[in-house]
Amino acid sequence: MRRVAVAGVGKTPFGAFADKDIRTLAVEAGQKAFHNAKTGPEAMQAFYLGNFAGPQFTGQNHLAPFISTALGMQGIPSTRCEAACASSGAAFFQAWMSIASGVYDVVMVVGVEKMTSQQTARVTEILGGAGDGPGEIRVGSTFPSLFAMIARRHMYDFGTLPEHLASVAVKNHENGFLNPDAQLRKIITLEQAVKGRPVADPLNLYDCSLVSDGAAAVILCAEDRVKEFTDKPVKVLGVAQASDYVGLEQKRDITTFDAVRAAAQQAYKMAGLGPRQIEFAELHDCFTIAEIIAMEDLGFVERGRGGFFSFEGNTRRVGSMPINASGGLKSKGHPVGATGVAQVVDVVQQLRGEAGERQLERHSIGLTQNLGGTGATCVVSILGAN
Amino acid sequence: MRRVAVAGVGKTPFGAFADKDIRTLAVEAGQKAFHNAKTGPEAMQAFYLGNFAGPQFTGQNHLAPFISTALGMQGIPSTRCEAACASSGAAFFQAWMSIASGVYDVVMVVGVEKMTSQQTARVTEILGGAGDGPGEIRVGSTFPSLFAMIARRHMYDFGTLPEHLASVAVKNHENGFLNPDAQLRKIITLEQAVKGRPVADPLNLYDCSLVSDGAAAVILCAEDRVKEFTDKPVKVLGVAQASDYVGLEQKRDITTFDAVRAAAQQAYKMAGLGPRQIEFAELHDCFTIAEIIAMEDLGFVERGRGGFFSFEGNTRRVGSMPINASGGLKSKGHPVGATGVAQVVDVVQQLRGEAGERQLERHSIGLTQNLGGTGATCVVSILGAN
Repeated sequence: MRRVAVAGVGKTPFGAFADKDIRTLAVEAGQKAFHNAKTGPEAMQAFYLGNFAGPQFTGQNHLAPFISTALGMQGIPSTRCEAACASSGAAFFQAWMSIASGVYDVVMVVGVEKMTSQQTARVTEILGGAGDGPGEIRVGSTFPSLFAMIARRHMYDFGTLPEHLASVAVKNHENGFLNPDAQLRKIITLEQAVKGRPVADPLNLYDCSLVSDGAAAVILCAEDRVKEFTDKPVKVLGVAQASDYVGLEQKRDITTFDAVRAAAQQAYKMAGLGPRQIEFAELHDCFTIAEIIAMEDLGFVERGRGGFFSFEGNTRRVGSMPINASGGLKSKGHPVGATGVAQVVDVVQQLRGEAGERQLERHSIGLTQNLGGTGATCVVSILGAN
Repeated sequence: MRRVAVAGVGKTPFGAFADKDIRTLAVEAGQKAFHNAKTGPEAMQAFYLGNFAGPQFTGQNHLAPFISTALGMQGIPSTRCEAACASSGAAFFQAWMSIASGVYDVVMVVGVEKMTSQQTARVTEILGGAGDGPGEIRVGSTFPSLFAMIARRHMYDFGTLPEHLASVAVKNHENGFLNPDAQLRKIITLEQAVKGRPVADPLNLYDCSLVSDGAAAVILCAEDRVKEFTDKPVKVLGVAQASDYVGLEQKRDITTFDAVRAAAQQAYKMAGLGPRQIEFAELHDCFTIAEIIAMEDLGFVERGRGGFFSFEGNTRRVGSMPINASGGLKSKGHPVGATGVAQVVDVVQQLRGEAGERQLERHSIGLTQNLGGTGATCVVSILGAN
């Protein structure tokens, strides 16, 4: 298989934008990526879109050609990939494969979600579509309640404390405060985070990510052509996708996600690297407990020790393993279908040394981990600076 | 790129099945494909799902792992592709690429739609999601009205008559009558078809395809491994996907679809064949006019002559170019997300000589054409018997 590189990236700010529809957001991100790669629509040979619930939030389906034609692309294959909150991770994986295979040289992948709409009152129901409808959702589970069960079990099994969860939120808010594109730029204290308004015990308001609008775009190309587009090429060293049961009660163990472990293992193998070589990461902190479990499943820390590791400050920007320097889903925002590609954009900006005030000291190898549902889909990518 | 073959196929009957949910349908088709290929879930390296509007019809999203795990697959990448009524054509295209690229050897692709549900009253609105929401749909267009405009223009430009449209319906009903899996097994006369209840003039009830539940599955594999699975291998000779503007008013000409022409051209080139070498085809007759235009865009007949060609009987099973020997979307049924893969299954059954009473005399090279919206997506595949 051919080696693949990142030719350009772009993204919109994340937030609640009453004046921007789903296409406007996606086009803004795509045009920024064209600009960043000093290229245009005529150079693209395929278009992949990651989107979770556009039809339900906006009424518009068939979104891939709807968006690609607005970006000036016509005639090429335009395909939407859906895999819950890992939709644009899945689109990124297909886009990577289409180049690694030799079918295409240059491909655009965009992730987008428009969650504030006339349907926002239904957001918990719509997000519930990522769970097991006839099973857990029918009996009243919601995503906060599912992750609350996961958190409760992690506390029981490993002694994880509310302060450990809170430390994830405090750190991600601290990082997002420095990110001009973040949705919630607000420093919070550990005490505030521990005493947040209850959502689904033990999770409170500060343990939950946001309802957001936003889009992100990446242009991928064959590595031997990347110099045409950028002086700061980034290599895709490894990437993998894996899946698992959708229903939480079907899993063998709810404090570890097999799909994350499988995807990580394959991505590490492809990159010829292990967790010790990863310098920083963007992880899927849809809830604080998810970031803790991700660190464990990715091998950054021993199983059960994620909460302690976070509480000790190791995942801060100045720590030994900076996690979510962007602010993560918690502070940066979580337009679900955009998140996977946005993580790639964030890692690319770090690798290029273009992350502004949140720039990390070590920035030559970064990882992204994008989760769908309670771990039924996971996409892991490992990116390296030239 | 590696050559790809069909290892096995399966599908459910199409119809309105109050007792079968979306997962049950997909699993039934998938299990039949396993049986047909004398294999099981453990041999699959990736899973692609084509589905258009499952979340809206059923509330269930994240459908790829929801279905793949029910079929016994865990750990592998499970991805849903959406491209309106060409969703499973798009999934088939990605599945093909994943093997042609050398990434995987054996992959399952399933298409499914469950259209009869508590949301069926909203079917016109949900299908409208495949059109241009802020443009044509907002002002009251529906898919029957959009295709009515296309038909009206084709009549004006080329002298196509209501009897020409009706001849498509009569022929597809004649074929579907012989298909035990077809939804509407009913012979109709030309007079009946011309005098059907008006839907959107000049289209009447007999010009419109059906609201259906159903699923279809194909197992693809690297050609050099196909003998492990079947004694009747079918080769994927060519396959291509293309896209175009979603809104009808954005197209340069509404009686020809650029995406169909582009996909056909690429698929012919890959196969090293032209329209004259195609012996039979399954075309996307969501409306009778769509079958007529598809024949023209694929080069089976001169532009503007599709209606005459059909009326003269050339597309019947005994004609020079049999079209939709399965009964097509008109009689077989049109569970939108299942249609693209179902067309492949129908062609494979013909190529293998397993099409029962509707078996064609010449059956060594067949073509499928799967359309999304009013031509914003098209997938064309060319399949050949060994």
